[in-house]
Amino acid sequence: MPEFLHLLPPTQALQRLLDALPGAGPLQVERLATAGSLGRVLAEAVRAPHPLPPFPRSTVDGYAVRAADTFGASGSLPAYLQVAGEVPMGAAPAVEIRPGRAALVHTGGMMPKGADAVVMVEDTQRAREGEIEVLKPVAAGENVLPQGEDVKAGEVVLTPGVRLRPQEIGGLMALGITAVAVARRPRVAILSTGDEVVPPEAQPAPGQVRDVNSYTLSGLVAQAGGEPLRYGIIPDDRAALEQAARRAHREADLVVITAGSSVSTRDITAEVIRSLGAPGVLVHGVSIKPGKPTILAVAQGVPMIGLPGNPVSALVVARLFVAPLIRRLLGMTHQPYHAEVPARMAVNIASETGREDYLPVRLETTQEGFLAQPVYGRSNLIFTLVRADGLVRIPPAATGLQAGDPVRVRLFEGP
Amino acid sequence: MPEFLHLLPPTQALQRLLDALPGAGPLQVERLATAGSLGRVLAEAVRAPHPLPPFPRSTVDGYAVRAADTFGASGSLPAYLQVAGEVPMGAAPAVEIRPGRAALVHTGGMMPKGADAVVMVEDTQRAREGEIEVLKPVAAGENVLPQGEDVKAGEVVLTPGVRLRPQEIGGLMALGITAVAVARRPRVAILSTGDEVVPPEAQPAPGQVRDVNSYTLSGLVAQAGGEPLRYGIIPDDRAALEQAARRAHREADLVVITAGSSVSTRDITAEVIRSLGAPGVLVHGVSIKPGKPTILAVAQGVPMIGLPGNPVSALVVARLFVAPLIRRLLGMTHQPYHAEVPARMAVNIASETGREDYLPVRLETTQEGFLAQPVYGRSNLIFTLVRADGLVRIPPAATGLQAGDPVRVRLFEGP
Repeated sequence: MPEFLHLLPPTQALQRLLDALPGAGPLQVERLATAGSLGRVLAEAVRAPHPLPPFPRSTVDGYAVRAADTFGASGSLPAYLQVAGEVPMGAAPAVEIRPGRAALVHTGGMMPKGADAVVMVEDTQRAREGEIEVLKPVAAGENVLPQGEDVKAGEVVLTPGVRLRPQEIGGLMALGITAVAVARRPRVAILSTGDEVVPPEAQPAPGQVRDVNSYTLSGLVAQAGGEPLRYGIIPDDRAALEQAARRAHREADLVVITAGSSVSTRDITAEVIRSLGAPGVLVHGVSIKPGKPTILAVAQGVPMIGLPGNPVSALVVARLFVAPLIRRLLGMTHQPYHAEVPARMAVNIASETGREDYLPVRLETTQEGFLAQPVYGRSNLIFTLVRADGLVRIPPAATGLQAGDPVRVRLFEGP
Repeated sequence: MPEFLHLLPPTQALQRLLDALPGAGPLQVERLATAGSLGRVLAEAVRAPHPLPPFPRSTVDGYAVRAADTFGASGSLPAYLQVAGEVPMGAAPAVEIRPGRAALVHTGGMMPKGADAVVMVEDTQRAREGEIEVLKPVAAGENVLPQGEDVKAGEVVLTPGVRLRPQEIGGLMALGITAVAVARRPRVAILSTGDEVVPPEAQPAPGQVRDVNSYTLSGLVAQAGGEPLRYGIIPDDRAALEQAARRAHREADLVVITAGSSVSTRDITAEVIRSLGAPGVLVHGVSIKPGKPTILAVAQGVPMIGLPGNPVSALVVARLFVAPLIRRLLGMTHQPYHAEVPARMAVNIASETGREDYLPVRLETTQEGFLAQPVYGRSNLIFTLVRADGLVRIPPAATGLQAGDPVRVRLFEGP
């Protein structure tokens, strides 16, 4: 298949890859302590074993009363109630509220039997010893949190595919659920290719450069929820790449190969992927810049992605394809919202129609808001992205952007 | 000091706390392998030990030439050049380009001596054995990445206080910097108070509820880059709280106490903080909802924060005060951009002027973009936040928001 005959838009390309994968849901499930599951993806539905709050609670400091006893009460004509006791925090109230009675209750305290409302302490006055004046009426239910207001017993409170944030951890703890089933992290094999590439700890000879892609991609994989496995640097040699790719294909849930940058080495990547099984290469060439030579494939159920060798292209394309694929392998039910910052373009930017451009920009703060300043550098080397806060997407229909145009900068920090 | 006499706006409150802390910069520095430093905050300036790229490289597949040899070349009148050899990937070229000569070079290959430009292979044609026709002229420097284009030798490429993203890790590796000095994670002590609070694994008796705040706050602390230390559940007792707070103050870099929700237990928190040293309580009461009873303090150089006991308030306030404080203790030089999603309010929302409101909302996708749907529930319990995607800030000057008003939803996922 000649390269780039049919360039697919990135959304269609991703969809074609996802459609070729076996059913949704996580690869495998593991059981973890809830306290250690922050950021993991839930693999089971969670039902509330009991209501929350588990008992009716006061929402203020005051007196638990029968609302009817306060009807018509005012500063000039208070209702007089006998104080039958105090509700201790953390225990069931010993008192029962009969007509004409009240009990001191603190915020969060359990409502005593017979009481249906709480008068705020500010709306009362001590009368004689053991008696209060209520200066304002309360309606039934006022200042009371009914049992099950937050969650009913048996209610599904969390569904599978949800990434656990601090509040989900808290919610599980509130229900006494101290262990949960989560998706195992997908193992993502990362292969860097190139005769010129040496490990970071090596002193490169003339003509050699250090491996960058293994490490940027490991970082992105970890951020997306995967477990990066570095398979090292593979020479531009069909047999060597096939051997390494075959091992990765056997051991990992997703194989990512950063191809050499010349056409011939890119062809080797596609050939090797094809040799690993059906359906093989699904997309070869995507209508984006950077990232045109991207390869998306599935070989015997294992997704494989061929990324451009250029570090900027590799990282930008990985955000578009590798991260969503990891989320799919985690069984996430929806993609996260893009973390974006609204800004205005600082300069005019040309773009070809029919192609989606991703432009690295730096945010500059002005009195009128953020300016998106393109990070120039025809080098397209890694420090281009070090100097950038995020990417501006130029849609395929646009011929470019004008200075002052509103844009949304997709932050590198975000999901 | 009576509670809430002077409510400070949140930005001023935070500033007052930060101003009372010892100088900027991280608490302590530790040395890590660069490969394991994703998300950590750099504690040293990094200079490039050599330029990047380290040698001039071809950016295309083609022939390295002397540009002058191609001047005037065209399809009808090509320039004829002798092919003097091929530049191997990953090695210094053996050939030197003299006038009338060219050498095959691949993308990323090192420019041979004498050559100053590269003709793309598409713009050439094989003539006789060992000879090519150049069909288009190139200018000097064309298709060549000069040495040092990305980074000059000795240039400061990273400054202290930067959080390391995948691209910073990659940039460090490109320069052979395989270990870096980063800020030690601030140790954040978390104390939950309340006679009614029991650990998540306990079966609560009537009147008791499980600890939520220790776990939601641990999650937030970890996300912000701190190391959460849970000091457990402290009863509503001045002596017990003072003992626990004293130990936390000695062992941690930041102490967070979720106060009981009744006025009396909140007063205990402030008293205990005051007992730990000067300057003591700096802010007691912030003009926000939720979160009015927030306490910000510094005791002998250690920041201390008293949060409301309600789980929703505690987590919302922690995002506003605990997370920025952790970033300051990490020596971060600037706060990250808020990850936001633009949306429109689904309904009218009232708000008091002079107070900043943070409203939990769920995002709904419509054809016109996102709708921000407030997550109701007067319960204000933890599942309110489980159902929310983010917060809408209602500024202090506003009396509320109208349905259809444009808002920015601060995502919980973001920084």
